[in-house]
Amino acid sequence: MSADVPAELTVREIGEFALIEQLRAALPPETIASHRLTTGIGDDAAIWRPTPGESLVITTDSLVEAVHFRLDWTDWSSLGHKTLAVNLSDLAAMGATPTLATLTLGLRGDERVSDLVAFYEGVGALASRTGVVIAGGDIVASPAMRTFHVTALGETRGGRALPRSGARLGDTIAVSGTLGASAAGLRLLSEPAESPRRAAATASMLIAAHLRPEPRLSLGALLLERGATSAMDLSDGLFGDLPKMLAASGVGARLRADTIPVAAAVRALFPEDWLQLATRGGEDYELLFTVPAAVFAVVQEAAARLGSSVTAIGEIVPMEGREASLTMLGLDGVERPVVTGAFDHFG
Amino acid sequence: MSADVPAELTVREIGEFALIEQLRAALPPETIASHRLTTGIGDDAAIWRPTPGESLVITTDSLVEAVHFRLDWTDWSSLGHKTLAVNLSDLAAMGATPTLATLTLGLRGDERVSDLVAFYEGVGALASRTGVVIAGGDIVASPAMRTFHVTALGETRGGRALPRSGARLGDTIAVSGTLGASAAGLRLLSEPAESPRRAAATASMLIAAHLRPEPRLSLGALLLERGATSAMDLSDGLFGDLPKMLAASGVGARLRADTIPVAAAVRALFPEDWLQLATRGGEDYELLFTVPAAVFAVVQEAAARLGSSVTAIGEIVPMEGREASLTMLGLDGVERPVVTGAFDHFG
Repeated sequence: MSADVPAELTVREIGEFALIEQLRAALPPETIASHRLTTGIGDDAAIWRPTPGESLVITTDSLVEAVHFRLDWTDWSSLGHKTLAVNLSDLAAMGATPTLATLTLGLRGDERVSDLVAFYEGVGALASRTGVVIAGGDIVASPAMRTFHVTALGETRGGRALPRSGARLGDTIAVSGTLGASAAGLRLLSEPAESPRRAAATASMLIAAHLRPEPRLSLGALLLERGATSAMDLSDGLFGDLPKMLAASGVGARLRADTIPVAAAVRALFPEDWLQLATRGGEDYELLFTVPAAVFAVVQEAAARLGSSVTAIGEIVPMEGREASLTMLGLDGVERPVVTGAFDHFG
Repeated sequence: MSADVPAELTVREIGEFALIEQLRAALPPETIASHRLTTGIGDDAAIWRPTPGESLVITTDSLVEAVHFRLDWTDWSSLGHKTLAVNLSDLAAMGATPTLATLTLGLRGDERVSDLVAFYEGVGALASRTGVVIAGGDIVASPAMRTFHVTALGETRGGRALPRSGARLGDTIAVSGTLGASAAGLRLLSEPAESPRRAAATASMLIAAHLRPEPRLSLGALLLERGATSAMDLSDGLFGDLPKMLAASGVGARLRADTIPVAAAVRALFPEDWLQLATRGGEDYELLFTVPAAVFAVVQEAAARLGSSVTAIGEIVPMEGREASLTMLGLDGVERPVVTGAFDHFG
C-alpha cells in the first residue's frame, strides 16, 4: 500500500473514497487498464469492447462471512484469491475465456485498510495471471457480516460452450485433479492447532486447497475444443453436483469408487472417511465432465500436456424410469444406489 | 405463485432449489428467454450473443438491509423494483441500452416464499418494461442482514457513452425531473404514521419516489444522441454528485437555487428545508448532465416529446486554482461557495 497511509487505519477512519484509491492502487496495472476497457473504475459504469464474433459468458458468486469463510481461518490475500477464483471456475466449466470482473465489498467499517489491500493483492494476482480486468465495483456498508461479491464475464467463440445438459449414453465421466482435499482442509482448519493431523506435514497442502482453489481455465477450454459433451465445476461435492448434470441431461450414471482420485494426504489423514470427503465434500472447484468414451484417452493426453490430470470415474447409463439414477461400485465390490444431495444454504 | 406452494412457507421450509423454481416462475417469460440468451438460469454461467458493433456497459449496485432499506418501510415488490432500478439508472447515465442482469439474493432463510415471489414480480415488471433479461444469479445465506445484489449489462454503439469527465466551460448544467422527492419520502417514512405531514394527500407520491425510482433510460439515450457532454445519475444528492463530475472534468460550476426543480409537495410539506432535501438528499435517481448552452433548448424540447422534463440549474465555469469550485446564487440573491460532500457509507 502507498507509504502515506498508516497500515493500521480502518475503513471508517480512511473513508470510502480514499479507500477506493488505495484498493485501485493495489491492483496490477494490467488488471485495471486494457485497450478494450474504454471506461473503467470511477464512472457510473464500465465500457468494454467485445471481441467480434464472440458470445458473452456471465456468472456471479458471493462469499459471505460465517457462511463461506471465517477470518480466523483465512488470510486476506487468500480470501481475495478465492472470491475471484470461484467465479472463474464457473467460466472454466463453460470452456470460456475470462475477460473482466466487477467486485463488490460489503464491509463493517472496522476492517484495516492494509487487510483490504492484501485482499485486492490476492484478487489482482489471480486476475493478472488469468487475463481478467477489474472493471469496477462497489463498496457498501454491511454492518453485520462481510460479503464479497463478484460478477465475472468471459467470451466464447460463436456461443459454443460446455453445457450441463450434454451428457450422452456411453460417455465417460471424468474429473480433473483430486477430490476431497478442500473438504479435508476445512476439517483441519476446524481442529485445534495442536491436533496431530493438523500438525502433519501434508496438512498445509490440504488447507491451501481449501483457501486458494485454482480455476481450471485452460482445461475447460481444452475440453470444449476436444469435444467434451458436458461440464460443470465441483462446488457442492461430486454427489451434490453430478445429479444436477444427470437431471439436466436426462441420463443416469455408474461410478467406480476405486477410480475416484483422492490425494494420498487425504487418505492418510482421514483413513475412515476419505471417500466421504471425496464424494460429499464441497469446494473442490475441479471440473466434472463427460466425453465420448472413444475420445477420453486423447483428452487425457492433451490435458497432461497442459499439466492437468484428468481421471475417468464412471460412465453414463440410461435413466431408470423417470429417475436420473446414480450408482457406485463400492470399494467392497458391491454396486449400490448413491444417496445424493447438494448443499442447501437453508437446509 | 404456483398454486401448489402454500403462501406462508419460508425459504428454509421450501429449500434453495424449490425456491429457485418458484422465483423463475415469477418472472415474465420475455425476461428469462431471448434468442440472444443461448444459455440462461440453471447452468454454471449464462451465454449472451451481443449485437455486432456494440460495446458492453457494465454496472453493479447492492441494497443492504438496515443500510439501504427497511422491510417495515417497503413492500417486497417495490424492493425488487428498486434493486433493479438503481442499476438501470447507472446505465441510463451512460446513455446505454440495458440488455441483461444477474441478481443475487442474500437471505436469512426466514423469508416467506410469497414475499420473495413479490420481489421477483417487482424485478420482472421493470425488466419486462425496459427490455432486460434476467440471465441468472445466486442465492446465498446471509444470516444477519438481507442483501440484494445486481450486475446489469447494457450496450452502446461503438463505445459511445456519456462520461462524467466531459463537462466543458460554458456548458449548461441540467437535471431531469425534480429533486428532493425521494429524501422527502424517506423522511416521511421515518415519521409516525399519524403525523400530519405523513397523512397529507401528497405524501404517498413522495414515498413512492423513494421506494420506486424510475430509471431515465430513454432520456439517457436521447442525451447521448443529442450531444450532451457529460452525465451521471443522482444517487448521493446534487451536492454530493456534482462535485464528482466537476473533479472528473476539471471545471467548476455556478448554480442558481431558484432554478432547482422541486416538487410542490416537497416545498409544501417541508417549508423549512426543501432546498436542503433537493440539494443534499440522495436517491433521486434523476440524471445530472451538461450540454453546450446553444443546444440546451433543443435537448429540452426533445426530452419533452419523450415525456421527460429537464431543467437548467447553472453553468460550468473555470476551476479556481486547483479546486473544482462550486458556488450557488442563493434564494436571497447572494452567491456563496457550496459545502460539498457525498454520502460516505462509513462516515
